[in-house]
Amino acid sequence: MEFKINSKSFDKLLSKVIPAVPTRTPMAVLENFLFEIKDGLLTVCATDLEISLRSSQNVAADRNTKMVVPAKLLHDIIRALPDIQLSVSTDSNSRLKLTTDKGVYHISYFSPEDFPEIPTVARDKEIVIASDDLKRAFEKTSFAMSKEDMRPAMTGTLLEFAKDGLRFVATDGHRLVKYVNKSILTDYTEQYIIPERAISVLSKLLGDGDVKIYLSKTHASFISGDIEFITRLIGEKYPAYNSVIPLENENLLTVDRSELLSTIKRMLIFSSGTSKQVKLSISANNLEVSSENIDTGSNAVETIQCDYSGEAMDIGFNTAYVNDILSHLDSSKVVFKLHSPTKACIIEPEYSSEGSDKAPENEEVMMLLMPVRLNN
Amino acid sequence: MEFKINSKSFDKLLSKVIPAVPTRTPMAVLENFLFEIKDGLLTVCATDLEISLRSSQNVAADRNTKMVVPAKLLHDIIRALPDIQLSVSTDSNSRLKLTTDKGVYHISYFSPEDFPEIPTVARDKEIVIASDDLKRAFEKTSFAMSKEDMRPAMTGTLLEFAKDGLRFVATDGHRLVKYVNKSILTDYTEQYIIPERAISVLSKLLGDGDVKIYLSKTHASFISGDIEFITRLIGEKYPAYNSVIPLENENLLTVDRSELLSTIKRMLIFSSGTSKQVKLSISANNLEVSSENIDTGSNAVETIQCDYSGEAMDIGFNTAYVNDILSHLDSSKVVFKLHSPTKACIIEPEYSSEGSDKAPENEEVMMLLMPVRLNN
Repeated sequence: MEFKINSKSFDKLLSKVIPAVPTRTPMAVLENFLFEIKDGLLTVCATDLEISLRSSQNVAADRNTKMVVPAKLLHDIIRALPDIQLSVSTDSNSRLKLTTDKGVYHISYFSPEDFPEIPTVARDKEIVIASDDLKRAFEKTSFAMSKEDMRPAMTGTLLEFAKDGLRFVATDGHRLVKYVNKSILTDYTEQYIIPERAISVLSKLLGDGDVKIYLSKTHASFISGDIEFITRLIGEKYPAYNSVIPLENENLLTVDRSELLSTIKRMLIFSSGTSKQVKLSISANNLEVSSENIDTGSNAVETIQCDYSGEAMDIGFNTAYVNDILSHLDSSKVVFKLHSPTKACIIEPEYSSEGSDKAPENEEVMMLLMPVRLNN
Repeated sequence: MEFKINSKSFDKLLSKVIPAVPTRTPMAVLENFLFEIKDGLLTVCATDLEISLRSSQNVAADRNTKMVVPAKLLHDIIRALPDIQLSVSTDSNSRLKLTTDKGVYHISYFSPEDFPEIPTVARDKEIVIASDDLKRAFEKTSFAMSKEDMRPAMTGTLLEFAKDGLRFVATDGHRLVKYVNKSILTDYTEQYIIPERAISVLSKLLGDGDVKIYLSKTHASFISGDIEFITRLIGEKYPAYNSVIPLENENLLTVDRSELLSTIKRMLIFSSGTSKQVKLSISANNLEVSSENIDTGSNAVETIQCDYSGEAMDIGFNTAYVNDILSHLDSSKVVFKLHSPTKACIIEPEYSSEGSDKAPENEEVMMLLMPVRLNN
């Protein structure tokens, strides 16, 4: 077997697929690329059994072959080469031989038998979404996924095809984000749960243009440019999140988002002891934000102008969660919809409908945060 | 006690001193700044018992005081403030009170009794060196310091006042760097060993302009701008490094530095198994560089043009050490001065004396590398 390839385009091909190679695995075969040359098309695959990546490139190879090649070693050497023409062949000792003007590199390859099959997803139902829209949806929601394995469904992000559009939902039981892309309309209602690792890898490899999504009961496939990304789905039932979203939170607090975020970042410094909470003392036009560290005897209090209609109220939150929520919104103002100090609070963006602070079209964002009981 | 200060200039003052605060220490008092206000001068100190930092700023305080204040907490909150005027005072509960337009922050302070004394170094002998020259000397040498505590002297860098100038020497027994700044001429011969941590912190805080250096038997003080940096010296005898530097290495190999460095970086990929060595097979005008990983059955060989006068020779080196040495030189070419495959090799820069590849004035660099026995 022999073909020629430019080092930089070979690097590009391998770089697309290598994110699926696990860095530590008890299954040594997963540390390899699966190489397949078929009728002039070189296809490179990698998988960690949860996610898989596949990409192809035309090469003028003299015959078909299939082998597994150490992924990190091959990628490292190709990356370290200057922009040159490379000849790739096999020798009689089961070694891949890379030849350049100046050097020769040998890398042992193995038979592809033990390499797990890359799942395929039927392409009968196709959803098309702009890469930027998909990235935005993941950005807005994924921070709220649970890090705990106790309830597997909550360690992923829900993709729900619903009447109002494609919903993305993430929650860890303390906070919840519901993001709706209203331009993806389907005639069916279905739920799929994407694992955390899939979202993190997929978000990085999404380029420009559109993504095509195919879904089965067990897997999802995302095709962006010449890359196919396949992930296992979490085969659990997602919690009935709608039932926890309060509908009648009549007390509305409107506040400048970046001003409050900057205050919360300072409160974070003081809520780093055993108590990780921040207290909002809300009255008409006046929001007092305070935090204390009982361990070190330090405390902080700041006053912010706000717009509030409702009864004066003291309410406590986990400071880091408020920070997360405000950091993942991009409007100039935010609205806290409150009922009482023990009931869930809804936080939503408020755009000014002009200039750079215009509400993005066709989206709806709702964040929910559970309060904590105040220490004092 | 009360004074006013701009948040950004307060941040600048604290940022200069905080590198000496240890992140983990059994001595809790070291996690604090020592604050001293004396006759309108605020001096902030920190120490980890090995290195200390001190900087000052004029403030209009109403009285003198001395206290210790939690370093990270204070630095974090000052950094997180916008550019504003700040009032700093003390309250009756032994708390520092920071007041801004919008907020109030309380931080407990403590009595300065338990804070260790910051060493002082007599200023009778003063050496003045440009910050850039000192940084360059450390950059060229410090990578070769030993990481092992077995021989404490070798874990530091030697500063030696000698006839030919100020010498900087570092060695770990396998390689050695001697850097001479020939513009620092003194009328005495003396040796001082600076610990690794001191060099790493000092290199980062050196700004523009000159550094003044004061030395005692036990400590060194470096003054750069408004910062004083004090370090303990390593109180050991430095090995007689001159005796290991061969004088008659008559076989000279001259090669393009960046070309060889790029080859060595590729060899590094293959010498990552149990053997970490690279083989140089040298003959007239031809340098063959090769490496193999016996564990994975992979290998690499490259050929580079060179200029060589001497007997053909195969010599082995630790690949990472060759990489380190070539990375810390900046000339277009390098000369390997060889004697035999078992004797120390000298590596020196060769500048072309024109354009950007001109030899820096008043410096001399010599690197020494011990070969390793070849596997095959």
